[in-house]
Amino acid sequence: VRARRLSEVKVRAAEGAFLAEGPQSCREAARFATVERLFITAAAAQRYDDIVAEVERKGGEVVLASEDVVAAVCDSVNPQGMVAVVLQDNHPLRAAIHSGSRLVAYLASVRDPGNAGSVLRAADAAGADGVVTSPDSVDLGNPKVVRSSVGSLFHLPAVTNVDIAEAIAAGRAAGMQVFAADGSGELLGPQLDLAHPTMWVFGNEAWGLPENVLTQCDRVVSLPIYGKAESLNLATAAALCLYASAGAQRAAQ
Amino acid sequence: VRARRLSEVKVRAAEGAFLAEGPQSCREAARFATVERLFITAAAAQRYDDIVAEVERKGGEVVLASEDVVAAVCDSVNPQGMVAVVLQDNHPLRAAIHSGSRLVAYLASVRDPGNAGSVLRAADAAGADGVVTSPDSVDLGNPKVVRSSVGSLFHLPAVTNVDIAEAIAAGRAAGMQVFAADGSGELLGPQLDLAHPTMWVFGNEAWGLPENVLTQCDRVVSLPIYGKAESLNLATAAALCLYASAGAQRAAQ
Repeated sequence: VRARRLSEVKVRAAEGAFLAEGPQSCREAARFATVERLFITAAAAQRYDDIVAEVERKGGEVVLASEDVVAAVCDSVNPQGMVAVVLQDNHPLRAAIHSGSRLVAYLASVRDPGNAGSVLRAADAAGADGVVTSPDSVDLGNPKVVRSSVGSLFHLPAVTNVDIAEAIAAGRAAGMQVFAADGSGELLGPQLDLAHPTMWVFGNEAWGLPENVLTQCDRVVSLPIYGKAESLNLATAAALCLYASAGAQRAAQ
Repeated sequence: VRARRLSEVKVRAAEGAFLAEGPQSCREAARFATVERLFITAAAAQRYDDIVAEVERKGGEVVLASEDVVAAVCDSVNPQGMVAVVLQDNHPLRAAIHSGSRLVAYLASVRDPGNAGSVLRAADAAGADGVVTSPDSVDLGNPKVVRSSVGSLFHLPAVTNVDIAEAIAAGRAAGMQVFAADGSGELLGPQLDLAHPTMWVFGNEAWGLPENVLTQCDRVVSLPIYGKAESLNLATAAALCLYASAGAQRAAQ
């Protein structure tokens, strides 16, 4: 029975589902996404009865399992007693970019799962309307992305596999300006209309954004570096840009 | 000879030295700290002759070694052809906190090396005068700290093993206000005098700052969360706080 369930999970994973591990991710998945099945230990089910109830309320299956089985399902070192099979939401681009969108993050060729998860978390915190990723960015169902997003993956529309030109065209059609975040640009400052609806474009951890992407954007914007650091890491830079917009947009209201 | 060198490195590591791996960290260590010895492949020595020259100029030893030896010295998967034995700088607290200090980050019980390195990088970028860590925070010589600081560890005084009460007393004596960054506090906003010299106190990734630390600080400050995220990660939160101060301080000049 164990083996059957496990292989079933692996089949599902190839068919538009992914795994969320641990109470925090499982709770957010249960609340904001569709949990098809929750593998949970008896101890965890007792402690986190709210998660079990939420999964059951929405028609998901709860499977009591041993600690070993839970660990084997998710291949994680420390799943803290639970792992959920979450149905992938295939959001259309308009779920993130529409006439009401004020803040969107586009990830171009972002490869590191921890960075992608951290940007999702920062975008969520900044109240962004959605996150859009390029076809060559990391799979958002990657367990490290799910883990480092700390639930944010389920909080806002994350639209994958969208070409940069398509995203920019959709952003402009929705009335947004498009800012590329890149060390080569003008400093983030009062000359920018940060209160205007904005799509921020963030590039790869190592090589940034290529010239042909920079030229497609309305402006190329860089963050001030006051010390000797050469740059900021991607997730930090994204948070500073997104919060600059979010703050200006709210101050202008 | 190889084995002797390797064990020598390990002895040194226990005696006030640590390792920096890869061109970026080695270059910053050579420029801003003291490299006792650089193990480097012939190919890397040719490509990065500036690093070799800088180490030699300052009296460090350059040891040509095979890729295997370089990898064995640093236990890293991908040292990119070089590893440096860097002498630990034992900065006194006054190197970071003095009458001219305007921005200091204190890390209380920060355990994750990637987070500590990212905070060092953000503090450096924000032009901070120094970073101070509590006795129970991660060792800043940890290879993951060095790697994720991307050279910033060598750019500003990082003072370790300082009790929070001692750091706060020194900050106040130097004319700084002390802000604890914590989700329980008042929102970061215009009611705060961010242009005033400030020591920011950041807590543990999982449990934040304990009550007895919060009460020692002048104010407890939280970042606005506009979306559904419960919190920001430590490095992101630190960057937003430090940049808020750095920007206000420069605007007030």
